Amino acid sequence: MPELGIGLIGSKFMGRAHSNAWMSAHRFFDLPRTPAMRIVSARNADDLARFASRWGWERTTTDWRDLIANPAIDLVDVTTPNHLHAEQSIAALEAGQHVACEKPLAGTLADARQMAEAASASSAQTFVWYSYRRVPALGLAHRLIADGRLGRLYHVRAAYLQGWGGADTPLVWRFDAAQAGSGALGDLGAHIVDLARFLTGDEIVEVTGAIEERFIQDRALPEDPSRRVASSVDDAVLFLGRFAGGAVASFEATRLATGVKNSNRIEIHGELGALAFDFTRMNELRVWDASTPAGEAGWTTIQTTHHDHPWCASYWPDGHGLGYEHTFVNQAADIVRVLGGEKPEVPLPDFADAYITQRVLEAVVTAARRRGPVALEEIT
Amino acid sequence: MPELGIGLIGSKFMGRAHSNAWMSAHRFFDLPRTPAMRIVSARNADDLARFASRWGWERTTTDWRDLIANPAIDLVDVTTPNHLHAEQSIAALEAGQHVACEKPLAGTLADARQMAEAASASSAQTFVWYSYRRVPALGLAHRLIADGRLGRLYHVRAAYLQGWGGADTPLVWRFDAAQAGSGALGDLGAHIVDLARFLTGDEIVEVTGAIEERFIQDRALPEDPSRRVASSVDDAVLFLGRFAGGAVASFEATRLATGVKNSNRIEIHGELGALAFDFTRMNELRVWDASTPAGEAGWTTIQTTHHDHPWCASYWPDGHGLGYEHTFVNQAADIVRVLGGEKPEVPLPDFADAYITQRVLEAVVTAARRRGPVALEEIT
Amino acid sequence: MPELGIGLIGSKFMGRAHSNAWMSAHRFFDLPRTPAMRIVSARNADDLARFASRWGWERTTTDWRDLIANPAIDLVDVTTPNHLHAEQSIAALEAGQHVACEKPLAGTLADARQMAEAASASSAQTFVWYSYRRVPALGLAHRLIADGRLGRLYHVRAAYLQGWGGADTPLVWRFDAAQAGSGALGDLGAHIVDLARFLTGDEIVEVTGAIEERFIQDRALPEDPSRRVASSVDDAVLFLGRFAGGAVASFEATRLATGVKNSNRIEIHGELGALAFDFTRMNELRVWDASTPAGEAGWTTIQTTHHDHPWCASYWPDGHGLGYEHTFVNQAADIVRVLGGEKPEVPLPDFADAYITQRVLEAVVTAARRRGPVALEEIT
Amino acid sequence: MPELGIGLIGSKFMGRAHSNAWMSAHRFFDLPRTPAMRIVSARNADDLARFASRWGWERTTTDWRDLIANPAIDLVDVTTPNHLHAEQSIAALEAGQHVACEKPLAGTLADARQMAEAASASSAQTFVWYSYRRVPALGLAHRLIADGRLGRLYHVRAAYLQGWGGADTPLVWRFDAAQAGSGALGDLGAHIVDLARFLTGDEIVEVTGAIEERFIQDRALPEDPSRRVASSVDDAVLFLGRFAGGAVASFEATRLATGVKNSNRIEIHGELGALAFDFTRMNELRVWDASTPAGEAGWTTIQTTHHDHPWCASYWPDGHGLGYEHTFVNQAADIVRVLGGEKPEVPLPDFADAYITQRVLEAVVTAARRRGPVALEEIT
Repeated sequence: MPELGIGLIGSKFMGRAHSNAWMSAHRFFDLPRTPAMRIVSARNADDLARFASRWGWERTTTDWRDLIANPAIDLVDVTTPNHLHAEQSIAALEAGQHVACEKPLAGTLADARQMAEAASASSAQTFVWYSYRRVPALGLAHRLIADGRLGRLYHVRAAYLQGWGGADTPLVWRFDAAQAGSGALGDLGAHIVDLARFLTGDEIVEVTGAIEERFIQDRALPEDPSRRVASSVDDAVLFLGRFAGGAVASFEATRLATGVKNSNRIEIHGELGALAFDFTRMNELRVWDASTPAGEAGWTTIQTTHHDHPWCASYWPDGHGLGYEHTFVNQAADIVRVLGGEKPEVPLPDFADAYITQRVLEAVVTAARRRGPVALEEIT
Repeated sequence: MPELGIGLIGSKFMGRAHSNAWMSAHRFFDLPRTPAMRIVSARNADDLARFASRWGWERTTTDWRDLIANPAIDLVDVTTPNHLHAEQSIAALEAGQHVACEKPLAGTLADARQMAEAASASSAQTFVWYSYRRVPALGLAHRLIADGRLGRLYHVRAAYLQGWGGADTPLVWRFDAAQAGSGALGDLGAHIVDLARFLTGDEIVEVTGAIEERFIQDRALPEDPSRRVASSVDDAVLFLGRFAGGAVASFEATRLATGVKNSNRIEIHGELGALAFDFTRMNELRVWDASTPAGEAGWTTIQTTHHDHPWCASYWPDGHGLGYEHTFVNQAADIVRVLGGEKPEVPLPDFADAYITQRVLEAVVTAARRRGPVALEEIT
Repeated sequence: MPELGIGLIGSKFMGRAHSNAWMSAHRFFDLPRTPAMRIVSARNADDLARFASRWGWERTTTDWRDLIANPAIDLVDVTTPNHLHAEQSIAALEAGQHVACEKPLAGTLADARQMAEAASASSAQTFVWYSYRRVPALGLAHRLIADGRLGRLYHVRAAYLQGWGGADTPLVWRFDAAQAGSGALGDLGAHIVDLARFLTGDEIVEVTGAIEERFIQDRALPEDPSRRVASSVDDAVLFLGRFAGGAVASFEATRLATGVKNSNRIEIHGELGALAFDFTRMNELRVWDASTPAGEAGWTTIQTTHHDHPWCASYWPDGHGLGYEHTFVNQAADIVRVLGGEKPEVPLPDFADAYITQRVLEAVVTAARRRGPVALEEIT
Repeated sequence: MPELGIGLIGSKFMGRAHSNAWMSAHRFFDLPRTPAMRIVSARNADDLARFASRWGWERTTTDWRDLIANPAIDLVDVTTPNHLHAEQSIAALEAGQHVACEKPLAGTLADARQMAEAASASSAQTFVWYSYRRVPALGLAHRLIADGRLGRLYHVRAAYLQGWGGADTPLVWRFDAAQAGSGALGDLGAHIVDLARFLTGDEIVEVTGAIEERFIQDRALPEDPSRRVASSVDDAVLFLGRFAGGAVASFEATRLATGVKNSNRIEIHGELGALAFDFTRMNELRVWDASTPAGEAGWTTIQTTHHDHPWCASYWPDGHGLGYEHTFVNQAADIVRVLGGEKPEVPLPDFADAYITQRVLEAVVTAARRRGPVALEEIT
């Protein structure tokens, strides 16, 4: 089996999740190429050496430009803060590399547009790590809707709730607009916009109304907790929208949902059925089939741990659940399949696709500031 | 114990629920006055006789004006369609009667305003049957927030979902704007607006954005299913808003949430805690206390069937749950307490209070049509 | 509609629940006869007068023998402590009255046998208030199994858990073997034995092993908490058994399940499906249908609030749940149906049926003391 | 960091799970020694080569005796069918190797006794893969009980339910008593006996009653489905028992719980609190604290994904759940800690400990056949 040389940029939370994915994917899945963990790049050489040793990267560099230029690399994996995505991804594309970039595509719409254009101009392939698409329950949900099991869609209710962003939380990079672009919107809202588009197979054509709110105005500096500095991003975003096919939708993303750890939820109601998901119970999909006789109808909780469910046959016997990290393992496997000429389990988002999500996010910001509806076609 | 003469107008779904409440309240509760089911009024004399006999009403009349004029009556209970609320309630007030009116206060803002003015001009007392306030779990939620247990409120997420309004559902009066005023908005949205106001103890000052949607354009006539006639109300309403105290909020009301029978849900997140409720499991309140050490923190499901919980000591031993109808029994009991000079378990909405809810509903309609924010103070 | 004269003996918890049932049944249900609340009997004349006035009983007597002799009575309803069931029920039968007796049939097997014999010798009809049979979810479960939807039954898991019986709980009559016969066994175990028999339509033929345990040896006297007196009943009972049809079963009944209010649970697994119920969520039945394709199979939570579900059409629109008390209203309605020549919604237990349950309870006690299996046929 | 040479015997389900654990443990955890995947042994050379390549084992052998004799090995990991555990483990111990053996310790009590004796005679360390101890929720449960948070224990309810063993399931080795020793008892019952002992910190002193049942008498041969051969193990086992400290307990293990995939459940009630767990939702522990005021008391669902929870700090940010495989990764990490002179997160079972569990399983078989109680001290 030919190898696929991976070069990773970034060694924080996502760098770790991706490293584990590249280490694990070919153990569980039968893949057309074997990911080889060639080079990892980050700024701090000491930390980087430990990171590389721990995760089995063959080499390190503190200059990501070396990495993308290295002929041993076939795929550049970008896990840096959002404001670096464009420069690194575009350079990698120009170097002829395939690129897998963490979500959101970029911190700004302009960056995202350039990335989509660079991808379009390149013969390389691009991927964006909207990895929740690869939760087995959501892969199943995608298939059910694609098979017409919900019929005409009426209503989408999506919320990504976290509660860690209280006044005591220091000013990490995620609260700095210059690095992150936005707060809950790009961090969490991006996921639910992508997810709603992925599941429905439809596009959001209007953001009808939006609230962007910062509850916590300043936060302590991590390096000097006695100093509080202005937080420059949204803590919560709420918006309403419409899909091309006629469905209405509500979206909420917040880091101030006290008591909620990591609840990426979506409920979709259609003419023939409905489904509901909450990442808090990631191995479950709840489904309603409107064709069941009323006296026996109910919400069926499918434990999505059966070998018939997407990705599951590659892991353990039926009934043994997966965890958060496997969404990345599944995505790594699907990326390798695509680069090896095979089909992914469900569609993978590329830069063009993620640019649409980015346009929706921009429409949300615009709607919140304009205090009025924004058509997606206004945002280019 | 002195009696309290009740006169009921209307004998459909709500007439039945109220009859049961007046029959039961003084059996379970120790009340300062005993409700006496004196007169019931409705248009069809035959049906009415059967109804009165079944529920134990002493007399009947097909003319509601006779009822309000009868000196045996102390309280007029209005359960007719929304467009009749104003005329009947105002006449009753002018006749010196106390009035308990079904929600929403009226089908139109003008009607509601007149009712509030009439109530203000009268020395009689008014009540509105926003009976979900009297679910024990929500009474407890009200107390917890009033006691400051959630601290500063950040976010309110309210949805009243039903799924019965598909294309096969005939054109009953609830789909006729002339009788109902609105669709999901007045029927379901009114409940969640009242509930959010009741629980937070705060007022909605802005409807920031709104969608009002009719998915089903025409429906079969009940009396002649071969004829389909235009439906004139909203099937679903979604809106975003802001509270005076700074909290942001989302609201959704729909009759097209396929698979959902009757889910009146609310989640509230504050600085010090959070709570969540779903009427589908009406005997449960989920609570998060942010002061719990992180390693032991979790959502606590309080089974609100303990004698310490509001209204529960009057029913059965701990652990024996109540049903839908008891929200009405509880409200009947609280109305009698107030009319007997005692305090209700938690605040009862009067016409002035329900008029504020009505203004919010009008703001929603206005925001949806204007396609922009509406301040509550604009709506008078 | 002819009346059915009811005479009630006892005015405590069950007297109250039955009064409410007799008051309500004909309001909700269309019945062949109208229950008339004629006479209530209890020992304390003052309390009794208040009770009768509150619940609408026409007359009172402190001598239950007067009640059963009164020609205005058609049905004697016995809600006294267990040791009085036999004397009162048998006297009523001998007086030609129909009898509805609270569960368990009696405090001792000898009493129960005499009651069954008296019922057999009488032309009157007997009923036992195993009212959990009349939870809509359990009525539905009974029908599904009777329709063969679970196929051959493999395994029954029944538990009735309560947690109120800690060391601080005083010595009420339920802890006195002379009055109650037994503790958790007769109080809670009786329910799950009846329920397992009702749902499976099968008989327990062997109690294979049993534990009867008293954790709290003495308890404070209610009238003088400074004195602690020996508790003489079991706090918890566990037993294993076999059904005639081959299914195996576990049963547990306890008042020391700390943290559990009132959880009457049962799970049944068969060749073709399975079902699960917990009274804590009484308006839900969970069902598994083994014929569903594996990738879509799951536990379906049926919200048993649809007009197709047993008893539900007589209450509220779909989706509006019932409470604890409605199991009694449903049973009152079914008793009146039977006495009026109609069929009950699902089978009602009579004295002969309840005597079988009593024999199982005796087999449990015998197995616990013998420390070995007991065949039901040994117990007569 | 010094390496720890691992030799694995067996390459089926458990061989895979252990390989993943040895590959991953030191990536996530900071360990005193680094596991080195030196040699894997299995019978089929072709399959073995693929397995070794896939999981990164350095060498292979079809003779496990070579493996245990190899000086590059420090720890022999045994994942073969139960009837091979004794021979392989004892030989490894005699070769001076540390041994980690899959559960149950052995297929027969005699084998288990010999293993415990060999472990006692050796200076090497032994471990048994009762890996459910290393679910974070159960690690937390262990700590809560060890800290006295439940007080005196009253009642343990343990069940390990699976539903895959219907009549259509072919006769794999798990249905052959010669290879497996027993059916549901050793496969599933062993887990819940170990878990109950681990959580309570107490010992089962009596099996009071037991049922061992084979529902499916014969099964198709996997290699020739047209031939059905006698199944020689139990499909379901139920038993009651008593702990030294006075708690009573029920246990059930079955492969015929239709509709249940893999539900390892336990509920424990004590004087001061209670807890409940179901592996179906492995990232949750439900806890009741009896000291909470009654009006606010409830079952708290702790999402055991916080860095304060056992093992969790080594994985992802708070709120990101683990999967089935991580119980093995956690155990691998704890084994390495112990062999490196550090403490495990919670106690690890060794052969002496697992021999006690095996004696309980034997007592169950004895009680079922004797049809009467068996004291644990009878079984040696």
